[in-house]
Amino acid sequence: MAAGATRSQQIIERCLTLSRFSEEPGRTTRTFLSAPMRDVHRCLRDWMERIGMQVELDAAGNLRGLYPGLEPEAPHLLIGSHVDTVPGAGAFDGVLGVVIAIALVEALQGRRLRCGIEVAAFSEEEGVRFGVPFLGSRALIGTLDSALLARCDQNGRAVVDAIRDFGLDPDYLPSAILKGDLRGYLEFHIEQGPVLDNLDLPLGLVEAIAGQSRLELRFDGHANHAGTTPMPMRKDALAGAAEWISLVEQEALAAPGLVATVGKIEVLPGAGNVIPGEVRASLDVRHANDDSRRSAVERLVNAAQEIAARRNLTIDYSTRLDQSAVACDLDLVAQLERGVVAAGYPVHRMVSGAGHDAMILAQRMPMAMLFLRSPGGISHHPDESVLPDDVEAALQTGLSFLENLT
Amino acid sequence: MAAGATRSQQIIERCLTLSRFSEEPGRTTRTFLSAPMRDVHRCLRDWMERIGMQVELDAAGNLRGLYPGLEPEAPHLLIGSHVDTVPGAGAFDGVLGVVIAIALVEALQGRRLRCGIEVAAFSEEEGVRFGVPFLGSRALIGTLDSALLARCDQNGRAVVDAIRDFGLDPDYLPSAILKGDLRGYLEFHIEQGPVLDNLDLPLGLVEAIAGQSRLELRFDGHANHAGTTPMPMRKDALAGAAEWISLVEQEALAAPGLVATVGKIEVLPGAGNVIPGEVRASLDVRHANDDSRRSAVERLVNAAQEIAARRNLTIDYSTRLDQSAVACDLDLVAQLERGVVAAGYPVHRMVSGAGHDAMILAQRMPMAMLFLRSPGGISHHPDESVLPDDVEAALQTGLSFLENLT
Repeated sequence: MAAGATRSQQIIERCLTLSRFSEEPGRTTRTFLSAPMRDVHRCLRDWMERIGMQVELDAAGNLRGLYPGLEPEAPHLLIGSHVDTVPGAGAFDGVLGVVIAIALVEALQGRRLRCGIEVAAFSEEEGVRFGVPFLGSRALIGTLDSALLARCDQNGRAVVDAIRDFGLDPDYLPSAILKGDLRGYLEFHIEQGPVLDNLDLPLGLVEAIAGQSRLELRFDGHANHAGTTPMPMRKDALAGAAEWISLVEQEALAAPGLVATVGKIEVLPGAGNVIPGEVRASLDVRHANDDSRRSAVERLVNAAQEIAARRNLTIDYSTRLDQSAVACDLDLVAQLERGVVAAGYPVHRMVSGAGHDAMILAQRMPMAMLFLRSPGGISHHPDESVLPDDVEAALQTGLSFLENLT
Repeated sequence: MAAGATRSQQIIERCLTLSRFSEEPGRTTRTFLSAPMRDVHRCLRDWMERIGMQVELDAAGNLRGLYPGLEPEAPHLLIGSHVDTVPGAGAFDGVLGVVIAIALVEALQGRRLRCGIEVAAFSEEEGVRFGVPFLGSRALIGTLDSALLARCDQNGRAVVDAIRDFGLDPDYLPSAILKGDLRGYLEFHIEQGPVLDNLDLPLGLVEAIAGQSRLELRFDGHANHAGTTPMPMRKDALAGAAEWISLVEQEALAAPGLVATVGKIEVLPGAGNVIPGEVRASLDVRHANDDSRRSAVERLVNAAQEIAARRNLTIDYSTRLDQSAVACDLDLVAQLERGVVAAGYPVHRMVSGAGHDAMILAQRMPMAMLFLRSPGGISHHPDESVLPDDVEAALQTGLSFLENLT
C-alpha cells in the first residue's frame, strides 16, 4: 500500500496544482479557453508525454493524449472529464477524472493492452461562460454546431471568437470528431453528493444519469397594504407559493428516486409591509426514469394550478428544460463492477443526479462512470475534497477494468 | 344634493390639482420639503386665506390655518392630515384630509363655532425621505427631537438641512408646538383597504389604530446540489420557510382581527439547481389589541423554531418594530358617530391597520378618525380614488360633528 498511498497522494497533489491556475486571485475559476487553461494544458501535456503518450490540442480546446493498444488498429477506450470549473470551485470536480486517467496509463508502465486508451481533458462542461454546458465533449461527437459556436459570453465574444482568441482554428473542428473503432467511454468523477459518504463507501457505479426538468412558475395575486387588508380578502401570491413549495417537497419525499427543488424565488413588490402580488419560482425535478419525472412534473404543475384556483391567484409556467435520462451501458457497467469486486471494494450502484460529459459521449458509444465519495457531499466549493484511499480504490478498480476489458 | 355634488367635486378636483405637484414627471412623488411642496402650500394657503383663515408655515414645514371660535380663548379642534406622498402615489392619501378640512371651514360660511378650528397640512407622514415617518406631526407635540433632526436622506442631507434648504429656521421649531386649550384632533383619511368597499359603506369610524410588530427571521440550512442530494439528506432553508409562511397565514386567519404578512423573502444562493442554504423573511403582525399581537408574534416565532429544529435548520430573528396600538377617544368617536347618524349614513366601527398622524397627536389630546371608502381597496397607487358621494358623506358628517361638538 505504500506505492498506492504515494500514487493517490500524487493524484491529489496534481489536482491541487491545477487548481492554482485561475482567472481570479485567491479562488479557482477557470472557464472555457481562459488564459489559465493554457497552464493546465502545459501540465497535463507534460505528464502525458513523460509516459509516452501522443498529445494533441483539438480545435475545441480539448487536450487529448493517445496511448495505443497492442495492434495499431485496436479499438480505443476514451477516458476523460473536464478541466473547466465553476466560479470559486474546488480542486477535484472534473480535473480528478483526467488526472486519474493519466495515472492509469502511467500504472501500465508501458505495457500495451488490447484496447488503445485516449485520455480527454474537455475544455468546457460547466456552462459558465456561455450558459450552455458540454462545449468540449460535444466537439468529439460533432454536435458543437453553428448555433452553439455563435453564442456569446457576457463580453459579446462568441464561442468561435474564444476558440480563435486561444490560437485555435475553428475550421479544424471536424477533425476533433472521434474516429475509428471506439470501445466506449469511461469517466471518473467525484459524486458531488452525500450518498457515498453517508453509506461510508469509497466508490459508486453509475447506472444512469438522471433526466432533468426545469420550469419557471409565476403566481399572480394582488399586492396590497399589509395592515389594512383583512386576511380573508387577500390574494397573497407568496402564501400560495409557500403552500406549493411544501407540496413539492412532500411529493419528492414520497416518490423513490425523485428529487425536486425550488431553489430560486422572487417576490414582488418585496416590501415587508406589502402583501406579495407576484412570485416567480424555479422548479428543478430529476429522476432516472423519464416517465416518473414527467408525471411528477405534471402532478406538481396541477397542484400549483389547484392551489392558485382555490386562492383566486393566477398561475403561469414555462418549461425551460426537459432532458431525458441517459442509461449507462449494461455490459460496460458490469465490467466496471467486476473491477470494483476484483479490487476488493464493496459494490454500490447509483444514479447520477448531476449532468456529466458522459451524457454526451453516450450518444455515440457505450458509456460507464465511476463515482468517488465526496466527503460531506461538498462540491462546487473550495472545501471540496477526496480521500486518498478512495482515489486508490478508483485506480485499482480502473486497472482491473482495463486489464480485463473485453 | 346639487350643491353637495359641486362641493365634493371641487374637493376631488383640488386633490387632483395638488397631485400634479411632483418631484417626478408623469407620476406623483412628493417627499418632505421637496420643491413641489411649495406649490402645494401656495394652493392651500390661497384656499384658506380666501375663506378668512390665518395661515402660517411652521418651522417643520407644516402649513397651518386658523379659523377662530366664538371667543378668542375658545378651545381649538385640530383637523389635519399630511401632504407628502409615497413614490408613484395616488391623489388622495393624506391630501384629501386637508382639503376636506378646508371645505368644512368653507361650508361654515364665516359662522363661528364654540371651538376654534386649526387646519394642519403635515409636511411628512410617509417616512420616504428619511426612513422615519410622522416628521410633520411630531413637531406639533415637540417630539421632533435632535436624533430625528440629525437623520440623513440618501444624499446625506439631514432633516435639519432640509428644513433650512426650504428657507425655514429650525431654531423656531419650539414655536411649532401646539399651545392653548386643545379640544382634540380629527383626521379624515381614505381607508387604504378593501373593508368598506366590500361592505359597500361610504364611511368607517376608526376605534383604534392597530399596534404593529416587524421582525426579520433567518432560516439557515445547507446549500447543496439539487441533483445529487437525496430528499431525506437535505437541509433546505426554503422548504422550512415555506412551511412557516403557510403557518403564519393559518394563525392569522384563525385569530380575529389579526393580520400577519410575509412580504419580503430572500433566498441564497438563489439558483434553480441549488438547494437553498439560507432564507431571510420579513414578518409584519398587526392587531388592535397589543396582547393579542404580542402573543401571536410569540407563537409564530416558536413555530419557526419548532420547524427549524425538526428540519435540522437553525433560526435567528430580530424584532425591528414593536409599536403599541393607539385607541381613539371614546367620547370623540361617539360624537363623530352621532355626526354619521345625523347625516343619514350607516355606522361602521373599525380598526385602522395602517399608521396615521392621528397616532402622534393622540399622545397629547383626544383623537378620532373618519375613513372614506377606498374603491377596490387601492392606495399608494395612481389608481387610488374616492367616490364623490363618499366625500359628501364625510363633509356632512364633519359638519354635523362640528355644529354639535361639546
